[in-house]
Amino acid sequence: MTGAPQPSLVFWFEFASPYSYLAAFRIEAAAKAASIDHVWQPFLLGPIFAHRGFADSPFNLDTRRGDYMWRDIERLCARDDIGWRRPAVFPRSGLLAARVATAVMSEPWGRAFCRAVFRANFAEDRDITAAATIGEILRELGQQPDVILARAAAPDTKEALRVATADAEALGVFGAPTFQVGSELFWGQDRLVDAVAWAARGKTP
Amino acid sequence: MTGAPQPSLVFWFEFASPYSYLAAFRIEAAAKAASIDHVWQPFLLGPIFAHRGFADSPFNLDTRRGDYMWRDIERLCARDDIGWRRPAVFPRSGLLAARVATAVMSEPWGRAFCRAVFRANFAEDRDITAAATIGEILRELGQQPDVILARAAAPDTKEALRVATADAEALGVFGAPTFQVGSELFWGQDRLVDAVAWAARGKTP
Repeated sequence: MTGAPQPSLVFWFEFASPYSYLAAFRIEAAAKAASIDHVWQPFLLGPIFAHRGFADSPFNLDTRRGDYMWRDIERLCARDDIGWRRPAVFPRSGLLAARVATAVMSEPWGRAFCRAVFRANFAEDRDITAAATIGEILRELGQQPDVILARAAAPDTKEALRVATADAEALGVFGAPTFQVGSELFWGQDRLVDAVAWAARGKTP
Repeated sequence: MTGAPQPSLVFWFEFASPYSYLAAFRIEAAAKAASIDHVWQPFLLGPIFAHRGFADSPFNLDTRRGDYMWRDIERLCARDDIGWRRPAVFPRSGLLAARVATAVMSEPWGRAFCRAVFRANFAEDRDITAAATIGEILRELGQQPDVILARAAAPDTKEALRVATADAEALGVFGAPTFQVGSELFWGQDRLVDAVAWAARGKTP
């Protein structure tokens, strides 16, 4: 028996990443329009940034780049009619949300959970590092927060997220969002169209 | 008497920058399609990078990012049918070419000169830091290399390039290419479409 078929496109995302937020609200329509399947893969940028020598978000370390990013995100959200409020704290660790996402990604409501977390962080300025916030989001999705948070805290879940992050780094991922099509990587929400076009041409190995 | 009318879009570029190369070969069609006027403005990234703490190209300082960039450029050139050969030396200083461009940008053949320099660097792997290479390009454009190179070396030209670089930094430019529409900056060749759309909507201050 061979392994499971590879999806056409893997969406690597990090809850702390503003451009991942944009991608999360754009990818479904883009993939559907091109009739390609895709999976959402949470991972953590922190360990990868640490290996690159960054002790903080590059947007905080370089204020010129950061100032540009905040204006750029605001413009892009307006363009695409996506809600936006600059978070009072940046970055907010995506660790808890990423563990929950790792645990529930295959549930029918997994992507809705991710979008709700992104919205909480980047449109509602809520503290996504707090179990109370994640619990509220889960409850709104009809889930039992205690049950899901226990799954998120299980050793298997933590290990799966560690492995995903190591896999991302091994692939060459250095930022988020990254769209993977076979061995090809496309970095940045503005490359979504290129990634989808690549997947649609069936250029996967 | 008031100052000259502001162009709808300013294309800030650096001859050492691979993504500026792509933009130089895409901008005419994009601007024409949207019926907007634009100017080409050479500047030097080196002093701006130095102020950001970079002693070399960020693509050399961070090999993961650099590896990605080389593959990305190759893919984009193939997509847009733009010639590509990875330069044996990177980055090649754009200083001499930028001084010439500063001197000749308003000539009818100014943009053709810039495109020829970019092509020499990124499609022909020629040494654009050498006066001989720049001279060949000028000769192919029907110009007298000695005359133009003397204009490029004149104190006024050097000063104009220094001022342009300082202006870029004051505007908030931190990379190339950057498209300026009024006070709005759009960084990266993949944002050309957004910049042109912004200019076309007349959202300049």
